[in-house]
Amino acid sequence: MSILTPTVLADLEKQSIELPSWAFGNSGTRFKVFGTPGTPRDPFEKIADAAQVHKHTALAPTVALHIPWDMCDFGDLRKHAEDLGVELGTINSNTFQDDDYKFGALTHEDAAIRQKAIDHHLACIDVMDATGSRDLKIWLAEGSNYPGQADLRGRQDRLHESLQKIYTRLGDDQRLVLEYKFFEPAFYHTDVPDWGTSYAQVSALGEKAMVCLDTGHHAPGTNIEFIVMQLLRLGKLGSFDFNSRFYADDDLIVGAADPFQLFRILFEVIRGGGLNNPDVAFMLDQCHNVEDKIPGQIRSVLNVQEMTARALLVDRDALTTAQKSGDVLAANTVFMDAFYTDVRPALAEWRESRGMDADPMAAYAASGYQQKIAADRVGGVQAGWGA
Amino acid sequence: MSILTPTVLADLEKQSIELPSWAFGNSGTRFKVFGTPGTPRDPFEKIADAAQVHKHTALAPTVALHIPWDMCDFGDLRKHAEDLGVELGTINSNTFQDDDYKFGALTHEDAAIRQKAIDHHLACIDVMDATGSRDLKIWLAEGSNYPGQADLRGRQDRLHESLQKIYTRLGDDQRLVLEYKFFEPAFYHTDVPDWGTSYAQVSALGEKAMVCLDTGHHAPGTNIEFIVMQLLRLGKLGSFDFNSRFYADDDLIVGAADPFQLFRILFEVIRGGGLNNPDVAFMLDQCHNVEDKIPGQIRSVLNVQEMTARALLVDRDALTTAQKSGDVLAANTVFMDAFYTDVRPALAEWRESRGMDADPMAAYAASGYQQKIAADRVGGVQAGWGA
Amino acid sequence: MSILTPTVLADLEKQSIELPSWAFGNSGTRFKVFGTPGTPRDPFEKIADAAQVHKHTALAPTVALHIPWDMCDFGDLRKHAEDLGVELGTINSNTFQDDDYKFGALTHEDAAIRQKAIDHHLACIDVMDATGSRDLKIWLAEGSNYPGQADLRGRQDRLHESLQKIYTRLGDDQRLVLEYKFFEPAFYHTDVPDWGTSYAQVSALGEKAMVCLDTGHHAPGTNIEFIVMQLLRLGKLGSFDFNSRFYADDDLIVGAADPFQLFRILFEVIRGGGLNNPDVAFMLDQCHNVEDKIPGQIRSVLNVQEMTARALLVDRDALTTAQKSGDVLAANTVFMDAFYTDVRPALAEWRESRGMDADPMAAYAASGYQQKIAADRVGGVQAGWGA
Amino acid sequence: MSILTPTVLADLEKQSIELPSWAFGNSGTRFKVFGTPGTPRDPFEKIADAAQVHKHTALAPTVALHIPWDMCDFGDLRKHAEDLGVELGTINSNTFQDDDYKFGALTHEDAAIRQKAIDHHLACIDVMDATGSRDLKIWLAEGSNYPGQADLRGRQDRLHESLQKIYTRLGDDQRLVLEYKFFEPAFYHTDVPDWGTSYAQVSALGEKAMVCLDTGHHAPGTNIEFIVMQLLRLGKLGSFDFNSRFYADDDLIVGAADPFQLFRILFEVIRGGGLNNPDVAFMLDQCHNVEDKIPGQIRSVLNVQEMTARALLVDRDALTTAQKSGDVLAANTVFMDAFYTDVRPALAEWRESRGMDADPMAAYAASGYQQKIAADRVGGVQAGWGA
Repeated sequence: MSILTPTVLADLEKQSIELPSWAFGNSGTRFKVFGTPGTPRDPFEKIADAAQVHKHTALAPTVALHIPWDMCDFGDLRKHAEDLGVELGTINSNTFQDDDYKFGALTHEDAAIRQKAIDHHLACIDVMDATGSRDLKIWLAEGSNYPGQADLRGRQDRLHESLQKIYTRLGDDQRLVLEYKFFEPAFYHTDVPDWGTSYAQVSALGEKAMVCLDTGHHAPGTNIEFIVMQLLRLGKLGSFDFNSRFYADDDLIVGAADPFQLFRILFEVIRGGGLNNPDVAFMLDQCHNVEDKIPGQIRSVLNVQEMTARALLVDRDALTTAQKSGDVLAANTVFMDAFYTDVRPALAEWRESRGMDADPMAAYAASGYQQKIAADRVGGVQAGWGA
Repeated sequence: MSILTPTVLADLEKQSIELPSWAFGNSGTRFKVFGTPGTPRDPFEKIADAAQVHKHTALAPTVALHIPWDMCDFGDLRKHAEDLGVELGTINSNTFQDDDYKFGALTHEDAAIRQKAIDHHLACIDVMDATGSRDLKIWLAEGSNYPGQADLRGRQDRLHESLQKIYTRLGDDQRLVLEYKFFEPAFYHTDVPDWGTSYAQVSALGEKAMVCLDTGHHAPGTNIEFIVMQLLRLGKLGSFDFNSRFYADDDLIVGAADPFQLFRILFEVIRGGGLNNPDVAFMLDQCHNVEDKIPGQIRSVLNVQEMTARALLVDRDALTTAQKSGDVLAANTVFMDAFYTDVRPALAEWRESRGMDADPMAAYAASGYQQKIAADRVGGVQAGWGA
Repeated sequence: MSILTPTVLADLEKQSIELPSWAFGNSGTRFKVFGTPGTPRDPFEKIADAAQVHKHTALAPTVALHIPWDMCDFGDLRKHAEDLGVELGTINSNTFQDDDYKFGALTHEDAAIRQKAIDHHLACIDVMDATGSRDLKIWLAEGSNYPGQADLRGRQDRLHESLQKIYTRLGDDQRLVLEYKFFEPAFYHTDVPDWGTSYAQVSALGEKAMVCLDTGHHAPGTNIEFIVMQLLRLGKLGSFDFNSRFYADDDLIVGAADPFQLFRILFEVIRGGGLNNPDVAFMLDQCHNVEDKIPGQIRSVLNVQEMTARALLVDRDALTTAQKSGDVLAANTVFMDAFYTDVRPALAEWRESRGMDADPMAAYAASGYQQKIAADRVGGVQAGWGA
Repeated sequence: MSILTPTVLADLEKQSIELPSWAFGNSGTRFKVFGTPGTPRDPFEKIADAAQVHKHTALAPTVALHIPWDMCDFGDLRKHAEDLGVELGTINSNTFQDDDYKFGALTHEDAAIRQKAIDHHLACIDVMDATGSRDLKIWLAEGSNYPGQADLRGRQDRLHESLQKIYTRLGDDQRLVLEYKFFEPAFYHTDVPDWGTSYAQVSALGEKAMVCLDTGHHAPGTNIEFIVMQLLRLGKLGSFDFNSRFYADDDLIVGAADPFQLFRILFEVIRGGGLNNPDVAFMLDQCHNVEDKIPGQIRSVLNVQEMTARALLVDRDALTTAQKSGDVLAANTVFMDAFYTDVRPALAEWRESRGMDADPMAAYAASGYQQKIAADRVGGVQAGWGA
């Protein structure tokens, strides 16, 4: 019998993780972007690659788009996705690559540039209407590099005004999720640097505005699961951008750098009612700078699934008993027992029971898809960030 | 003519910085507390030492107390303070030194222990009534050391309930300020680890609850002046605990570790209307582990004064012009010009114009006070943290 | 059949981890030290407690002492230890608790104080002669809190001179291991803050001087396994002080904060020939501030054993093949497969095969020892750090 | 009379700071590189811009080149530089932008790729012969992103072998300086992550190999001036790459983020005999992502000069007296007095006494050079990193 109970399996059955279209394009550092054979040249090819991840894992039914990187005929793209068994998801805006935005976009001193950035977001909402997407995700890359360069307070006020104008345009079933980030690309100050700022800003907008938590966007030593707990408690956790990091915003495969941290995060998600809760979207936001992209995404969703399974295995009654009695070691033991349990064989069984291969990484490698796209996708310009 | 304009001098004239009574007692690390000759044995002697700081600087008219470390007859203490030209200020509670609080106080699983901690705070409000203090400062030392040890979410909810009971008891002119701290004494999680949590908790209480920002309580690399700006903008910055640090909560003399950071903080205070604003209390919270205590406090208030003067010297019009035109270097130059201006001679003049010595450190050293207390305070138990 | 091959089991069979006598005494933070029933009052009781850890795990045959905390008749103590089935191990010196050392010991400006500190170390070598210990461990708690306070360069030169005098006194089979620490108790500078400084200092002494790596003594984000690799490569890794930390030198149970980091460290130990290598001592250096002490030590040595087993399971040939072919995901998968393998049942079997209980934590709890010492050890002063 | 004594002025007179040619080209983050009018299109135009910095400051007589970014006819370039009053300086190699180097260069598993990287360095030495440069600077951008991806130990050994081959080719008056960097572009491990590793590697090569310290390449909280002190003490500080940072390797203008840190670094340089010592090269390594480039470099060299002047003002005798007597506050006061002294008017006088404009920033702005290059440099491809 599986170590995963029917209840646990039912939870896992419902799990879905959104893939970022840009993970299938090239990415890198300011020093170098390495290209790879078979990299998509357009959004249609990105969707095709994303569909492979879902095919082998049954975990990734939706794909997030980035505007303008994924500009195309969205009716066609939606049809293309559905034909491949996936759907279009969150729409991500971009206010960091236009020359006008060198000193800010939604926060810029110049009203005309602010309006341009607002209009970009309204255009993104048009895209959402076309794609059937629910969420508009705003990562605010704005900030300054030198003390004195910017008026921190004025920018915060202008940010509120700009967000308000975007918020007003949202449909009844649409949401705005505001991502925070500790630093980069700005080095001295970032206009939404922490969860507190994102929380204050979205609270001032209304119920359709939520916080997006990217697991790589915190200061060293930050207890991220505490923030997860708090945002769930405050009813404002809108989505996750999963990835992992050792030092900065490394955008590595989720769970790769500190698997135990991912376990603790998922435990708080479950504890706070955030698992399989439509209000809390699970997304990846990663860069496969040196590893293969499609297998990198497969590994990522498997990591989230495996760690969710481990977190679901925590004996909550035993944990509560130990916590209430102040038995530190007993409580920690209950917690670690779940983490150290090897759920991989049971998940392989689960996949087989659904007609999938036990080992998605091997199945993908054996499928010949990688060789096919490497052979087919010759010529054109490989997709990337256009930085 | 002084480089400090009459307007700047008028602002400096109003400045007052509260001293912590515990800075005059012994403190140290978990490895060692070094004692020094002349260290106070009781709150009366601490107040006497604090009065010396005010005498030589005219900057420190109030003294914060810590309960139970400063338990005594508060009517007598108030009279004693007034006789020495100072007043009693903020009352600090203590929920980290009773054996019952090993696993929490206001957040404890056990309702009886929570009530004990609440009662302690109600007793502190009684003290406030006796001392005429406005602010009850709560630093929540609670947390856990091991993942699984504590129910993060449950503790947060219990914290709210406990704070609510304390808040209700506040008088019309009294306030509760909630301090946040990144880590220590708990190592895995802290119940109020960041400004966002403190903000969410005090917002749920009401207008008399505010956030206390201790400059040493942040993760590495945190932009503290941004938080100052944000809390002022949200109307929730209740007080500062000034000190400085290189790595952790070092509690060094304010401005000693990163003077430019102090400048940036004070600039945002001024920019956001927080200077000489009764809603925003300036306090020190420091430990003089290896340096002399009274001179350490004198140096501290002088550091705040000098840096306030520099921040007041920023040419705000020129700064705005440069910011609006995107001239990064010009804006930074305006900012740095103020920082690099040597205000010390002008402040020495200002002191002399008020009948004080130009050099408070020298004046104190020459006063013979240190020799006197070293000679007089023989026997008894030197004050410390009682850890 | 066990997942642990005979080769792996043979390696595990040889593993030994030294316990610190001070882990059985009370410890805490600068804010509070909580006492617990049954805490030892003298070194003899500490050794008795340490023997319990070895009894239930067969992993901890030696106990490190701290001078002067463990001063006693060392002939008696050695006999006492042997009667209980353990031996005395590393001798730790203390240059941070004497009032003379407020501004340094081996680095002090005053030659008389330096000599006092040197003499203390010579006395420690006398203790080593009496206890039969091989290693003198020097953790240099010296440093300064304020820029300008100390002459960094002069202190470094004096440190060399002082160490030279201690080194000269070592017996042929004795060693000096020099521990480095990022910060605390000094906050601005520490005289041996990093492995580079320790390496430079011990290299200048000679072959009997080595570096001690405490896993909690690094800056945020430091790749500790890299340092392990480098020191092994340079032939200068003398010993480990194992513990874990979230933020600073938390001294938590090894493996508790970041189990994957412990795995990576042990993998590099194995890769570099440091496992069961007499030159590389495995020690714990932890504080059980809130959890039970003896079970805390049992958990600790089990954590090291379990993670060593996982690291031994890495398929080195497969890893090398993947590394050589630049297959990032395959290499990472080989690595993670070992980490995620649940070795606990196999280790339980191994214990049973040696006549021990499968579950050392349960066996200790059931033994009644804790109740016995709580009842017996009444009166006297509980051991602690004497801070 | 100037506050700068003749001795101080004589030291300042000798100061020279090398400029990086790449600071005059475009740079940015992985998200965006903003171009600016007038940006050089080739090394000749970079040299012309660099000469402007020297013209207005008399501080920057040499320019470092980066190979292959600055490949050209070096005889012509040398002549061009001399005509403009500057000289060619350090040659920087590049092993991070060739597709072959995705998994390493000097450390690669494949001997053929290692040889390619070695050959690149030998070609750089050929360039040095042509340019008359003394120093070959190697920043090793190599590392890995995922645990298990790379054999840390094997790479370190291969690094030694590769460096040895390069070292052997150095001329009698040439040097190799090895830069270390905490992280980026690799995220999990970097092959030369800290000064200890660079020191161990260059020590194994010989006297012509030295360490390069980039002030932005350390973990959070690292005491950089301590490393400066230690490397000077060990005789292995070959050069500085000056810049500043708030969080990661931000490459901001030196002194911009933490001016007091720059002061402390320069104090240790002076204390350790590193000022105007030919063995210790002062260089900038910065990116002007959002500010003007030529004025950015002018500001940078002025910052170094001003802070050197402040550090030279420290009353070393008074400092020593305070340090020897354990008077923490007195020592700190001596130190801070120098930092807070406004040396800018005296340096303006010094410039005027040498026939330069008092305000180099204003003089450059008034010169019309910026307008001229903006008008002239039309067409072609603006120089950048070619990432």
